[in-house]
Amino acid sequence: MIGRLNHVAIAVRDIEAATALYRDTLGADVSEQVAQHAHGVTTVFITLPNTKIELLEPLGEGSPIAKFLDRNPDGGIHHICYEVADIRAARDQLKAKGARVLGDGEPKIGAHGKPVLFLHPKDFTGTLVELEEA
Amino acid sequence: MIGRLNHVAIAVRDIEAATALYRDTLGADVSEQVAQHAHGVTTVFITLPNTKIELLEPLGEGSPIAKFLDRNPDGGIHHICYEVADIRAARDQLKAKGARVLGDGEPKIGAHGKPVLFLHPKDFTGTLVELEEA
Repeated sequence: MIGRLNHVAIAVRDIEAATALYRDTLGADVSEQVAQHAHGVTTVFITLPNTKIELLEPLGEGSPIAKFLDRNPDGGIHHICYEVADIRAARDQLKAKGARVLGDGEPKIGAHGKPVLFLHPKDFTGTLVELEEA
Repeated sequence: MIGRLNHVAIAVRDIEAATALYRDTLGADVSEQVAQHAHGVTTVFITLPNTKIELLEPLGEGSPIAKFLDRNPDGGIHHICYEVADIRAARDQLKAKGARVLGDGEPKIGAHGKPVLFLHPKDFTGTLVELEEA
C-alpha cells in the first residue's frame, strides 16, 4: 500500500537558523519560507535527490507542533510521510486492521495541496505517520 | 554536500511486530532480520520505491538504542541518514563550520558495510544525523 517516502518533517524553534544550517553547513537546496496559516506552521523544504525534508516552525496560537517543541526543546523529527495512491482506500484498509486514524478520519488538504491523513503514533511504533495521496 | 536520504531509522521494542506492521498493515516490502552484534542491534529494512526505513531492535547488553527506548517506550524515529560522496571531506567541512562529530571522529563501518559517522543532535535541530559514504 505505501509508496514513496514523500518527506520527513523536522520541528524547529528557529526556521531561519535551521534553513541556514541545511543550506550552508549541509550544502542542500532549500526553498523559501511559506507561512501556512491554515496549518499553524511556517514551512521550508529541503530538496534531496530522492525525497524532501520539511522544516516546521510554529506559527500563531495553538500550533499543532507547539507541544512537541515543549517536550523536545532542541527540535526533532516530528513525522514521516508516505505516499498512497488512494487515501480513502488506504484509510479503510488500515481501519479494518485496527489502526487508528487521527481526527474525524476524513482526509484534509495538507501543506502541499493534496489530501492527507495522520495515523496514531501508538499504532505505528511511536511514529507519527502522515499519508498523502500522491 | 549531502546527497540522497539513505534511510530513516526507527527504534522498536519488538522488531517482529514492527515488521509485521509494515508488511501486513502498510503493505511494504520487508527484509529478513539481521543480528548486527558489532552494532548492538537487530535490523530489518523496509524498501520503499525511493529510500529505506531501517527498523532497529536492541541486541545484547549496552545496545546504543537502549536509552532511547527508555525515553520513548513506544519506539520512535531514532536517526536519519544522508549520503555523502567523501565522508572524510564532509567531516572536515562540518567541523570547520563548528559542527560536532560523535565519537573519535573517525568513520566506522556501519550496518551496511560502508563508512559512517554520526553528528551531534544539538548541532542539527535535535536530530541525530548519520552520514554514510555512498
